[in-house]
Amino acid sequence: MSFTEFPSRLLENAVNEFASLPGIGRKTAFRLVMNLLRRDQNEVIRFGESIIRLRSEIKYCSVCHNISDTDICNICSDTKRDRSVICVVENIQDVMAVENTRQYRGLYHVLGGIISPIDGIGPADLNIDSLEAKVQSGTINEIILALSATMEGDTTNFYLYRKLGKYNPLITTLARGVAVGDELEYTDEITLGKAINNRNPYQQ
Amino acid sequence: MSFTEFPSRLLENAVNEFASLPGIGRKTAFRLVMNLLRRDQNEVIRFGESIIRLRSEIKYCSVCHNISDTDICNICSDTKRDRSVICVVENIQDVMAVENTRQYRGLYHVLGGIISPIDGIGPADLNIDSLEAKVQSGTINEIILALSATMEGDTTNFYLYRKLGKYNPLITTLARGVAVGDELEYTDEITLGKAINNRNPYQQ
Repeated sequence: MSFTEFPSRLLENAVNEFASLPGIGRKTAFRLVMNLLRRDQNEVIRFGESIIRLRSEIKYCSVCHNISDTDICNICSDTKRDRSVICVVENIQDVMAVENTRQYRGLYHVLGGIISPIDGIGPADLNIDSLEAKVQSGTINEIILALSATMEGDTTNFYLYRKLGKYNPLITTLARGVAVGDELEYTDEITLGKAINNRNPYQQ
Repeated sequence: MSFTEFPSRLLENAVNEFASLPGIGRKTAFRLVMNLLRRDQNEVIRFGESIIRLRSEIKYCSVCHNISDTDICNICSDTKRDRSVICVVENIQDVMAVENTRQYRGLYHVLGGIISPIDGIGPADLNIDSLEAKVQSGTINEIILALSATMEGDTTNFYLYRKLGKYNPLITTLARGVAVGDELEYTDEITLGKAINNRNPYQQ
């Protein structure tokens, strides 16, 4: 069944919005919308508001740039964590992935992306200045470069090593237990945990 | 990656809402939410509001019970359509499916379900009284029972035939036969039997 004509503009709008999500086709979008239409009104309002509030009220930690409900995230404000180690990751999915291994008790720094000339993303687009400031302060003993095992990850590792090396912290990278070509977000937690434990000094 | 801990309650709420949709697991829900988080704020507000407005403002046509933005839907208010034929369907998806064939120019009547004792749905739960009133008015020449070719569909067809037959309209059902594109070898024997019994003169 194609969707040439909708009996309602409201229905059509909602289907179009769902169909704009990645991996959601128009048939699936229609099925999801019909499911919402059968639900209690308050439940549907809660659904819609959860989306609006997420985007409108979400904060990013002023220290590590992780997603947060507060100005400083739970991890950065946790006094039990080792504040002398910083794990540098691409995005918040990667913070969650490393946290789920339960192998790491230091802090994070979320770059907000990865150097990728093809996508037009250079160092200036990433949270690198604030990372440099932390390292420059002299309180950091170790920087763990926990980026994806891809060309872009390697490029970013290299850039950060050159940028931060002059402050003489220990710079380590994840052990290559992570298969080359795999994205960190989808790596299973045992492999990722081993990779953190087996981290090695950065080698050019 | 499992999702034991979210860095933000807002994020967790949104993921939970998406994961409550049929066929959307927690990983997919998370991916969808991260997509929304990267979008422009106004776009996300529009998304959320489209859901809320859909459920809050949607109307059902007072004549045929189809979904509608107005009290009487576009089909029922279309003076070019044949008002003496009513196609009885289970739900609004079926209205859209029949409309998309572009083969039908009469009106519809949406039952809002199908008789299914297992699911506890009886005739009293469906829009049958308003259908009877239309037939009773004497302006209807033909009732097309366009319900699913299932046990529940057959039960509902039988009920409606008994209920409406006394007003002597022409009551028809959809042709049962081999679906276009189906291979004979894989067509079930009941369908094939009906297709043989209901065979038609060959037309080039």
